[in-house]
Amino acid sequence: MKILIEREPLMNSIQNVMKAISSKTTIPILSGIKLEANDQGVKLTGSNSDITIESIIPVEEDGIVNIHEMVPGQIVVQAKFLPEIIRKLPDHQVEINVDSDLNLQIKSGHAEFKLNGQDAEEYPQLPVLQTDNSFDLQIDLLKMLIRQTNFAVSVSETRPILTGVHLKLENDLLELVATDSHRLASRKITMNDSEQLTFNNVVIPGKSLSELNKILDETQETIQVSVTDNQILFRTKNLYFLSRLLDGNYPETSRLIPNQSKTVVKVDSKELIESIDRASLLAKDNRNNIVKLVTKGQNTLQITSHSPEVGQVEETLETDSIEGEDLKISFNAKYMIDALKAIDSDQVSINFTGAMRPFVIRPEEDDEQILQLITPVRTY
Amino acid sequence: MKILIEREPLMNSIQNVMKAISSKTTIPILSGIKLEANDQGVKLTGSNSDITIESIIPVEEDGIVNIHEMVPGQIVVQAKFLPEIIRKLPDHQVEINVDSDLNLQIKSGHAEFKLNGQDAEEYPQLPVLQTDNSFDLQIDLLKMLIRQTNFAVSVSETRPILTGVHLKLENDLLELVATDSHRLASRKITMNDSEQLTFNNVVIPGKSLSELNKILDETQETIQVSVTDNQILFRTKNLYFLSRLLDGNYPETSRLIPNQSKTVVKVDSKELIESIDRASLLAKDNRNNIVKLVTKGQNTLQITSHSPEVGQVEETLETDSIEGEDLKISFNAKYMIDALKAIDSDQVSINFTGAMRPFVIRPEEDDEQILQLITPVRTY
Repeated sequence: MKILIEREPLMNSIQNVMKAISSKTTIPILSGIKLEANDQGVKLTGSNSDITIESIIPVEEDGIVNIHEMVPGQIVVQAKFLPEIIRKLPDHQVEINVDSDLNLQIKSGHAEFKLNGQDAEEYPQLPVLQTDNSFDLQIDLLKMLIRQTNFAVSVSETRPILTGVHLKLENDLLELVATDSHRLASRKITMNDSEQLTFNNVVIPGKSLSELNKILDETQETIQVSVTDNQILFRTKNLYFLSRLLDGNYPETSRLIPNQSKTVVKVDSKELIESIDRASLLAKDNRNNIVKLVTKGQNTLQITSHSPEVGQVEETLETDSIEGEDLKISFNAKYMIDALKAIDSDQVSINFTGAMRPFVIRPEEDDEQILQLITPVRTY
Repeated sequence: MKILIEREPLMNSIQNVMKAISSKTTIPILSGIKLEANDQGVKLTGSNSDITIESIIPVEEDGIVNIHEMVPGQIVVQAKFLPEIIRKLPDHQVEINVDSDLNLQIKSGHAEFKLNGQDAEEYPQLPVLQTDNSFDLQIDLLKMLIRQTNFAVSVSETRPILTGVHLKLENDLLELVATDSHRLASRKITMNDSEQLTFNNVVIPGKSLSELNKILDETQETIQVSVTDNQILFRTKNLYFLSRLLDGNYPETSRLIPNQSKTVVKVDSKELIESIDRASLLAKDNRNNIVKLVTKGQNTLQITSHSPEVGQVEETLETDSIEGEDLKISFNAKYMIDALKAIDSDQVSINFTGAMRPFVIRPEEDDEQILQLITPVRTY
């Protein structure tokens, strides 16, 4: 095997597949990157028990030559040092040679590395995903869907199913839901070309979505999403991102969302974020990060927190409007800030149903596409 | 006590004095910042057992008003939350009020913090430094002196005196030396106005110099340096940085520096740094970070390292010249990179005296002002 390749696309591909490689793997060969050279180009593969990523460097793309010389072959090389080695090479071209004893030689300028390779035949065969359950999404939209929901997955393994994002497609409506049982994030979009495709109980591990979001650039190009019973595949021209799905039944979450409200607050989102952020400075000292919100008079909110050892903070916030009953409620400041940032709207509407019931945050110009729900805490 | 002050200079002063505050202090009141308001302005003090920093915010400076209102007084306030609180305040002005019960109120825009204060009378009296041993230095020069020597102090407490930088002034020649017994960094400058001032065995803790370097901006303004038997004071118009000195006698280091050489290599510094950096990528896997340097023919250096598990790397480097005996030598890659970066010269001259003797690196245009010495390791 021999490759004479540009350093930059090689570096990008290595960084992509590194997202799937864990230093703690129990299968030693999976701590390596698989390199395959064939007539189409160079394919790199990284994998762990949850995610497999393939990144393809085509010989030529958009008139730019990536690969100048190639003799087909394959090898597995230790991933630990590879990104640093390639990044620090002196020349923009890299020559990779593999001999019959699995020695990998990397040459660039006056630098020459010799690394011990492993036989690519020992690398696990990756499952070939067979499904007709495919739909296309714009990549920037997919990234937004991930950002708006994935932060709310559970980080605790007590209910493993909650560590994933629930995906549902029905009647051209795609819905993502994440909840850690204290808060819930929901985002819907209308699909134009899902072609009667329907699925439910597809639960993608939150970590998979985080890595996918890091790899994908913010573009308007599309990505193909294919779903089977136990795996999901995201595929672009040069990237193949396969994740296992979580086992088990995702809880029915729609009944958690209150369909009425007793107090409705409309407020500037940025001002609310900043006020809660300041109030939570002292709340963090208690390790529970709880702030208290109280309606004051016509259009004023008061946000307070208290730490016996340090002191207290009081924020006064003018809202656009407060309608309905007076309210005193306490909640986790971080949940509120996460939710407001996910909604990413200038003005938000918060719908409360009393001090002990979950409350719902939506953009003030509600198009029913995004919803954040937070369960308050009892402090009175 | 009352202050109406601009947020930005207050923030800067807090950040400066925070450099002296340790959360692990055994004297509880030293986990706080002392605030004093008087007619000159507002003075903040932070201190630990090694360093005391005072930062003064004048009422007005360069025509800009920092302090709009003031009622004199003093208080000690918990340092832990103060930087974040002040940084996140909504308005560019901050009002601070202290009542007779030591409650501190911080108001800005619609935000109001109430913090528990402590009696400033309980804050330790700081020693007043009395000395005529003072000289002036340009601040950017002082920062360079610190950068070029301080990295070489020992991080081990087995010989505490080596954790400091040795300062010596004699015949208008100021010399700084740091060594951890494996390497040595020396920098001299000629003083014009040291007025027959002479001192020796002034050893400043490396940590103090690191913090001082962080606080000082890169300017051509001067700083006054005053030395006593057990303390050193760095003073600018609005900053007062006092450090204890290390006890004990600093070793005589001048005899360590070889005055002859058997092999002299002149080489491009940046190329050498990059080659050693790449060679050390695999050397780090051994945890000793040792690379081997071998002269090859007329003007060529070969730099190699080897990790049994990962592989090996070989760098070929064209030098400007190699004079004298052939050489094979091994050394710590990090020490070499630190030394080359400290010298900060395009071309360097490396003087070797055999494989087992310390070698010396100087700028190729040697003005005898800077010298870096490294002890090789035995690998043959």
